[in-house]
Amino acid sequence: MKKVMNTPETYVRDELEGLVLAYPHILRLDPKWNNVYRKHKKAPDKVALVSGGGSGHEPLHAGFVGYGMLDGACAGHVFTSPTVPQVHAAIKEVATEAGVLVVIKNYAGDVMNFKAAAEMAKKEGIKTEYVIVNDDVAVPEPEKRRGTDITILVHKIAGAAAEEGRSLEEVKKVAEKVIANGRRFGFTLTPCIVPQVGKPTFELAEDEMELGIGIHGEKGVERRKIMTSREIAEYSVNKILEDLKLGPNDEVFLIVNDQGSLPPSELFIFYRDVRKVLEEKGVKVWHSWVGRFITSLEMHGGSVAILRVDEELKRYILFPALVPANLPFNMPPYASV
Amino acid sequence: MKKVMNTPETYVRDELEGLVLAYPHILRLDPKWNNVYRKHKKAPDKVALVSGGGSGHEPLHAGFVGYGMLDGACAGHVFTSPTVPQVHAAIKEVATEAGVLVVIKNYAGDVMNFKAAAEMAKKEGIKTEYVIVNDDVAVPEPEKRRGTDITILVHKIAGAAAEEGRSLEEVKKVAEKVIANGRRFGFTLTPCIVPQVGKPTFELAEDEMELGIGIHGEKGVERRKIMTSREIAEYSVNKILEDLKLGPNDEVFLIVNDQGSLPPSELFIFYRDVRKVLEEKGVKVWHSWVGRFITSLEMHGGSVAILRVDEELKRYILFPALVPANLPFNMPPYASV
Repeated sequence: MKKVMNTPETYVRDELEGLVLAYPHILRLDPKWNNVYRKHKKAPDKVALVSGGGSGHEPLHAGFVGYGMLDGACAGHVFTSPTVPQVHAAIKEVATEAGVLVVIKNYAGDVMNFKAAAEMAKKEGIKTEYVIVNDDVAVPEPEKRRGTDITILVHKIAGAAAEEGRSLEEVKKVAEKVIANGRRFGFTLTPCIVPQVGKPTFELAEDEMELGIGIHGEKGVERRKIMTSREIAEYSVNKILEDLKLGPNDEVFLIVNDQGSLPPSELFIFYRDVRKVLEEKGVKVWHSWVGRFITSLEMHGGSVAILRVDEELKRYILFPALVPANLPFNMPPYASV
Repeated sequence: MKKVMNTPETYVRDELEGLVLAYPHILRLDPKWNNVYRKHKKAPDKVALVSGGGSGHEPLHAGFVGYGMLDGACAGHVFTSPTVPQVHAAIKEVATEAGVLVVIKNYAGDVMNFKAAAEMAKKEGIKTEYVIVNDDVAVPEPEKRRGTDITILVHKIAGAAAEEGRSLEEVKKVAEKVIANGRRFGFTLTPCIVPQVGKPTFELAEDEMELGIGIHGEKGVERRKIMTSREIAEYSVNKILEDLKLGPNDEVFLIVNDQGSLPPSELFIFYRDVRKVLEEKGVKVWHSWVGRFITSLEMHGGSVAILRVDEELKRYILFPALVPANLPFNMPPYASV
């Protein structure tokens, strides 16, 4: 197994320690639970945002903790949900009088544990609401759809609304707007290796790829001979446009994401082709992000996420976000000589 | 060959088009030469910075074009130097009355072509100087050392000095200070595949790794059974500290870099171990960057770069940099609702 690590057992703790060492001015780690919180004290009148899930999706979730996005992130073992007491500890830690919004990705373990923790907190008198992200169009039935890339936009947009002082009900409402208007489709040329398992999650021939993958190293919904970037772009965009019923003159926000080990050159080739396909269809790209935001360990794949936008969503997408995943040079944007 | 691309022939052009499509407010592409420039007009009294080299090292160099860093970047074919006329065109395009500093990585082809282009420009009356980066401690003889990660800090620091209005002589002097005080060491667990070649740059068994790699898919200087992250950190840091004669109470800036396909989890595990080793040696880490800055296509490896800092260098490291590689959310830091 080719990994830069010490032991499978210390994998998650070691990476969280590294992240917090790199961003000590933004993050702190609760070593009892592997929960990551904002370094600075919470504002009592701000709605707090908690999310999390299995590890192996970095920078999601801890890389999105900080001003403008999350207040707390729970890291489970690789591809394994955090426990109920762990999530409960996070909700209690970040809770304010304004309440807590829990952002859950639609996976059985996450939904069960995060909902149970939210119910516990509610019974203890903490104002708690939750939303469930189910954006992966590879799965036909909406209620079974996995929670993937759009989760980041829920963190971004609901996080900005919370920062602006909106109520728990309002923050939840804007999160639900993101979920209703956002979809994602993913593909990969390789499987990945879970550290504690030590072998690939599936077998794939040298000339094959998978379309319609999730984020846990699972196979896609269709196996094909390796397609060109342009063909993958067309396939992925079509899946999303059909589902969101998007067409000429609709305005969207676009994320083109590296699933773990797609080098920047290939990522920007793919982005170019996604843009060309959208242009040909007359869909207007208002703004976009291209980068490594949600991963499946070292998968050589990518994903496309599209959000139908309105003025409120645009405003919150452009709200500042002082989070590790948005600070490669690790300095506040106002830094100056 | 597992790559998300269209054809090997269009690989570089496609990725440059994607980059410029993603950052149209910062970049423009000269399609005749595959040169990338700042979108906005140059200030006549600012020293201009030009760099470039073979492609396959993204985000280097075009990802560092923008306010606070480069004015122009020349992209050659993968792992192949840009041509003399191409570099000459870039120097002419960005030249100002204050002059042009050309930043060259120490590789035979780059040195030959960039120097020849600089001489041509000089003869035409453009004030032109150059510096050569040779920071890779894997090579014992300093004059043969390859130019790698420290190149980014030359872009960053000389770019900030230029932005501040310093003269060509002063900007060159600070670039030379960076080169004199910066070193790098790299490793990999896998080779990579050049698109136009279609097979791995070398063979490596499932339990083996290479220490002391460059950035062109070449073998390292030593082959080993896969070491732990902590062992690699110790080996890499020792090489640099010995060479820079760094010890207790010396203050440094640190980059821990993903060589292409090291997932963020492994990158932060490795960063943690590098920090621990430096702490044990008493070397004081003033500030650090952790990310994907200079790559060898899809190599599963990493590198450590260390710069001995003084107040001038620190000031310029914290100078703003509005460049694609520093803007994952693709918005100016002053964006606000």
